[in-house]
Amino acid sequence: VLAGVGHVGRAFLSLLQEKVETLSSRYGLDLCLRAVLKSDGGFISRSGLGIDRICEIASGPINASPDWNPGLTVEAALGRIPPGVLVECTPSNIKTGEPGLSHIRSALDNGWHVATANKGPLVVDLKRLRERAQKNHLALKFSGAAAAALPALDVGRYSLAGTEIQAIEGILNGTTNYMLTKMGQGVDYAEALRDAQAMGIAEHDPSLDVEGWDTAVKLMLISNVVLGLDISLSDIKVSGITKVSRATLVETKKEGQAVKLLGRIRRDQGDFQAEVAPTAIDRRHALFHVDGAEKGITFLTDTMGAVTVIGGKSDPRGAAAALLKDILNIYTSNL
Amino acid sequence: VLAGVGHVGRAFLSLLQEKVETLSSRYGLDLCLRAVLKSDGGFISRSGLGIDRICEIASGPINASPDWNPGLTVEAALGRIPPGVLVECTPSNIKTGEPGLSHIRSALDNGWHVATANKGPLVVDLKRLRERAQKNHLALKFSGAAAAALPALDVGRYSLAGTEIQAIEGILNGTTNYMLTKMGQGVDYAEALRDAQAMGIAEHDPSLDVEGWDTAVKLMLISNVVLGLDISLSDIKVSGITKVSRATLVETKKEGQAVKLLGRIRRDQGDFQAEVAPTAIDRRHALFHVDGAEKGITFLTDTMGAVTVIGGKSDPRGAAAALLKDILNIYTSNL
Repeated sequence: VLAGVGHVGRAFLSLLQEKVETLSSRYGLDLCLRAVLKSDGGFISRSGLGIDRICEIASGPINASPDWNPGLTVEAALGRIPPGVLVECTPSNIKTGEPGLSHIRSALDNGWHVATANKGPLVVDLKRLRERAQKNHLALKFSGAAAAALPALDVGRYSLAGTEIQAIEGILNGTTNYMLTKMGQGVDYAEALRDAQAMGIAEHDPSLDVEGWDTAVKLMLISNVVLGLDISLSDIKVSGITKVSRATLVETKKEGQAVKLLGRIRRDQGDFQAEVAPTAIDRRHALFHVDGAEKGITFLTDTMGAVTVIGGKSDPRGAAAALLKDILNIYTSNL
Repeated sequence: VLAGVGHVGRAFLSLLQEKVETLSSRYGLDLCLRAVLKSDGGFISRSGLGIDRICEIASGPINASPDWNPGLTVEAALGRIPPGVLVECTPSNIKTGEPGLSHIRSALDNGWHVATANKGPLVVDLKRLRERAQKNHLALKFSGAAAAALPALDVGRYSLAGTEIQAIEGILNGTTNYMLTKMGQGVDYAEALRDAQAMGIAEHDPSLDVEGWDTAVKLMLISNVVLGLDISLSDIKVSGITKVSRATLVETKKEGQAVKLLGRIRRDQGDFQAEVAPTAIDRRHALFHVDGAEKGITFLTDTMGAVTVIGGKSDPRGAAAALLKDILNIYTSNL
């Protein structure tokens, strides 16, 4: 069941259409789309919706179709279908978590796994949602909300299992990294922002990105999952890039350094300190060469040394691919 | 049960000693060492061996201890203990796969999961061993043999699930990367090799490393698992670094490029072509900055773009940490 048909929801529908046969032959997993919901209604079919048809409808005004059920809610849809995975892609509200928070709670209370790209519910209620999932032996996966196609959560939790992680540092927001890279080349802040908006990688209101909150949310999610903490946004000291000048960047570059908006958390005498701030790093730093809209993350461990992951598409298709990966990993044994 | 008490086996024992309490509190997993075996005998206890004591013994001539059972074999030990995980660290023989191959077959036939750092059995019989594990619902994990603490298999199989991987390129051998880095700085081949040997990162007989076979084995394992292929070493065109001159490296560096011993496999009209060869890459390549004994791997995908992982200790402790990670992931649910 898909809730939300914005950029990521639509990308997820296209990806499903493109991949459904390969997934069946390669993983033995037959995915079937049984409902698609928006805020004012949806499509539902116990025997499965034709994905081709849904994709076609989704490219136009979706609620004009004759199969449209006005007023159908996520909660109602989940009750009418045998449990599977709820794919939550409704708009993110990091103050209330709604409407995604109610959708996810309802899913976890009714035997549904959840894969979500929606940060809001996780910012508001991560700990209790994870407890609810665990209690009911259900998966709550959110790669799509944490760093999308950059496998930050997987590597931290799965590949570094058994290590003691002393610090995590990440370039977790492609928009600001793109802007800082441009500014280092001599472009001013306003022009770098216009560029990013023209490329479709910055929102019309870019404040969540440029003020550092998008990075802070991702840092919070990664820290809580990977380090087993329970920090909230207010535990992170956040400063964005709005006060960084082109002159500073050009000067830093001359000195062989680069300014990056780093989200980082480090162990400090048993406690953890988390911060988001523009930071000058030199070429020995593993993230020094992560330029443009690219993202990257470094984990410092006791037994495996430093492990860095770089890349992963930042667009809706990358986020949709992260959702699909999470779904596959819910159903595929890790043996 | 641990088979093999060489560098990696000893590192695994120390790591177990160091981590056993943390693992119990963090993952709820109580690891218990029930047997340790060498080629001429071993220690065994159904109720568990004292890890502290075993570590102490392992630092000296192990078979001088009064608890030593001369002639005890892995097969016999597995039959006398309730099934768990066999940790296979005996010396690697890539021609016969023995003695590890018999150990692993015996484990999988008797209900034991396997985590191994031994390349030999996998080179000789990977496909059938994996089928045997799958048929018996057992795990056969070998991060420790593929790229140790660099999570190449995890990222390829788990984090990129559902993507179509078009190519994989890796710097998979720390020794040769160290030597090439040194030679780029003007040191000649013989001196670079002596350096690597003095640092303990090159064997006394370095031929497997410098002739490219270590890289080829890792490429084979990663390709077969991640791309679902069934290639053997003879399907890979292998050339090492023995004919690379300091002059070429210095010249390449002047042109802004770096020579790396790359293992790569790429889709070529439906088929895959695999090769190990010294390759000049420029600074736009994701592995350009991977210098010294560091390793790295890049996956090119259809839906997630390029994803690169860099780092992970190359020493016995890193390999031991990879074994421990695999064990944790066998017993920890992926929900």
